[in-house]
Amino acid sequence: MSELKNDRFIRALLRQPVDKTPIWIMRQAGRYLPEYREVRAKAGDFMTLCSTPELACEVTLQPLRRFELDAAILFSDILTIPDAMGLGLYFEEGEGPKFKKTISNAQDVANIGIPDPELELRYVMDAVRLIRKELDGNVPLIGFAGSPWTLATYMVEGGSSRDFYKTKSMLFSDGATAHQLLTKLADSVATYLNAQIEAGAQAVMVFDSWGGALTSRHYKEFSLAYMQRIVNQLTREKDGQKIPVILFTKGGGLWLPEMAETGCDALGLDWSVNIAQARKLVGDRVALQGNMDPAIMATNPETIRSEVANILADFGNGSGHVFNLGHGITPSINPENVAALVDAVHDISVQYHQ
Amino acid sequence: MSELKNDRFIRALLRQPVDKTPIWIMRQAGRYLPEYREVRAKAGDFMTLCSTPELACEVTLQPLRRFELDAAILFSDILTIPDAMGLGLYFEEGEGPKFKKTISNAQDVANIGIPDPELELRYVMDAVRLIRKELDGNVPLIGFAGSPWTLATYMVEGGSSRDFYKTKSMLFSDGATAHQLLTKLADSVATYLNAQIEAGAQAVMVFDSWGGALTSRHYKEFSLAYMQRIVNQLTREKDGQKIPVILFTKGGGLWLPEMAETGCDALGLDWSVNIAQARKLVGDRVALQGNMDPAIMATNPETIRSEVANILADFGNGSGHVFNLGHGITPSINPENVAALVDAVHDISVQYHQ
Repeated sequence: MSELKNDRFIRALLRQPVDKTPIWIMRQAGRYLPEYREVRAKAGDFMTLCSTPELACEVTLQPLRRFELDAAILFSDILTIPDAMGLGLYFEEGEGPKFKKTISNAQDVANIGIPDPELELRYVMDAVRLIRKELDGNVPLIGFAGSPWTLATYMVEGGSSRDFYKTKSMLFSDGATAHQLLTKLADSVATYLNAQIEAGAQAVMVFDSWGGALTSRHYKEFSLAYMQRIVNQLTREKDGQKIPVILFTKGGGLWLPEMAETGCDALGLDWSVNIAQARKLVGDRVALQGNMDPAIMATNPETIRSEVANILADFGNGSGHVFNLGHGITPSINPENVAALVDAVHDISVQYHQ
Repeated sequence: MSELKNDRFIRALLRQPVDKTPIWIMRQAGRYLPEYREVRAKAGDFMTLCSTPELACEVTLQPLRRFELDAAILFSDILTIPDAMGLGLYFEEGEGPKFKKTISNAQDVANIGIPDPELELRYVMDAVRLIRKELDGNVPLIGFAGSPWTLATYMVEGGSSRDFYKTKSMLFSDGATAHQLLTKLADSVATYLNAQIEAGAQAVMVFDSWGGALTSRHYKEFSLAYMQRIVNQLTREKDGQKIPVILFTKGGGLWLPEMAETGCDALGLDWSVNIAQARKLVGDRVALQGNMDPAIMATNPETIRSEVANILADFGNGSGHVFNLGHGITPSINPENVAALVDAVHDISVQYHQ
């Protein structure tokens, strides 16, 4: 494998000096790009896109051809694990993800196993290997997975949910079953991420999309504890290179100090948190990734540049910041605004790395 | 007007000694009650229910006949103000609220006026007067309004929204127009709440349902500043009785200290915040209201009782706590679980008020 030509992203996650602040964008391979929509239309459905390594590789690389992004992220879905467990993931046009089977009780939990990444999730590993090859060391490749709690919500509810009443009822009234499910999920995620690292992922991120729907107490017991279990099992170095781990709980701004204690390398921040305050809270334990409001992307280059300047000034001097949005970029965004964002981050940040 | 037979709610908001922790429930007059659904069905649509004082009074009182709640809350909607401004509020079955006209630019803002509560919102004032009379001093009546930022989102988007891109674009790219709109809304809300107080409301609450969708900086500039403007204008004493003011920003757990600085009497908490930490953050400046996860209500009396005990223990000794859910009770909840909640709060809290 070739050495990295641009290692700004990895260095920032490890809080090593950089020349400018690196940037990538959640959902950077996505529907706001016409070339993505073209490949997606040809593929027919979303799962075909995810499960065909050549197509997943192509859309992963698309945003890097347009913008000077400092990292690529595997094009995939957080629900590949429950799908590989046999729940039958499918997408209906205009609706969220759904599962044919759901998890309701201890017997359902006993029936699921930990997927072998090179068997049931082989298409993901093949995509990682192909992307690494095609990237040719230009920028690092990020692997990812959903957090155990977030995966559990989809598996118990059978799809997206607003209130998570079924999943929360399991936590509140049948904690033993919930813990068994989350343990299996944590071990599956750790196995899956380690396989991604083995296949070529140079950093990994755990997306806890729904941790913010829990109380402080339940977050620590049912979400954070299982991200800790994952962090404990991850491969942290490969071929002499550190493999940084990023944890991101959307709506988790109140719990940053506890998240930093897991031993991860970086925390993702949504936009509700002020990054200056976040840096004070976590000290030099972890790097921070984020956190521009995605709604800013719907404005214009001048407004975007001004908000970039605010966030960079809030973070202040030194390494340890990876610029990103606080959540995924949405389909309505003009790609010209993305170019303006990337340029603004690189231009304006130089002064903070003298 | 008669003296209050049960003033536990008012006393707790003012951090005066009480015998037990008072409780009321957001949306306590609502669809989980069969008697509410009956009146609602007869009324035909939701707006008829809101705008007919006899019906609004009837549904306000229904939960008090079943449960030993320590306060009544006016049955109404936060969108009565933009409706009175001429935007034409309507509800389509199974969908959220919608407006016939929307606000897009400075001219639209110039065209709206501050409604006279005894003219355009007379039906609300009549409902307040009728409810106060029917309550006969048994428990206090809470008046309420939406926050300026929250009202603005509905007026600019034309209804509910997920991302608030239109409203946020106004904040980000045309701040002057946004500030004009929010100023008119703050003055309208203050006028409206003062009229509710004049008509008989004994405490008032401002619901900032969507403040949590903003960054820290934008929250302070576009939401909190206008709640401050309201607090500054409110009648705080009537007939020798203090009129407490409660501010509630859903998702605002990161901003409690700044909210406490407004001079309000109490802060509403959603369930993501630990109430022990919230109490530490706000000190003795304000009382706290909340904050059980509404999902607990979908379980059973034992689980509810156990979570009530946790929250009461977290708050600890002394007055300054009004028990509530962290958000509105949902239609699927069994009324027997509400009875269990109210009893648990009253029973278990006695030990903290010795």
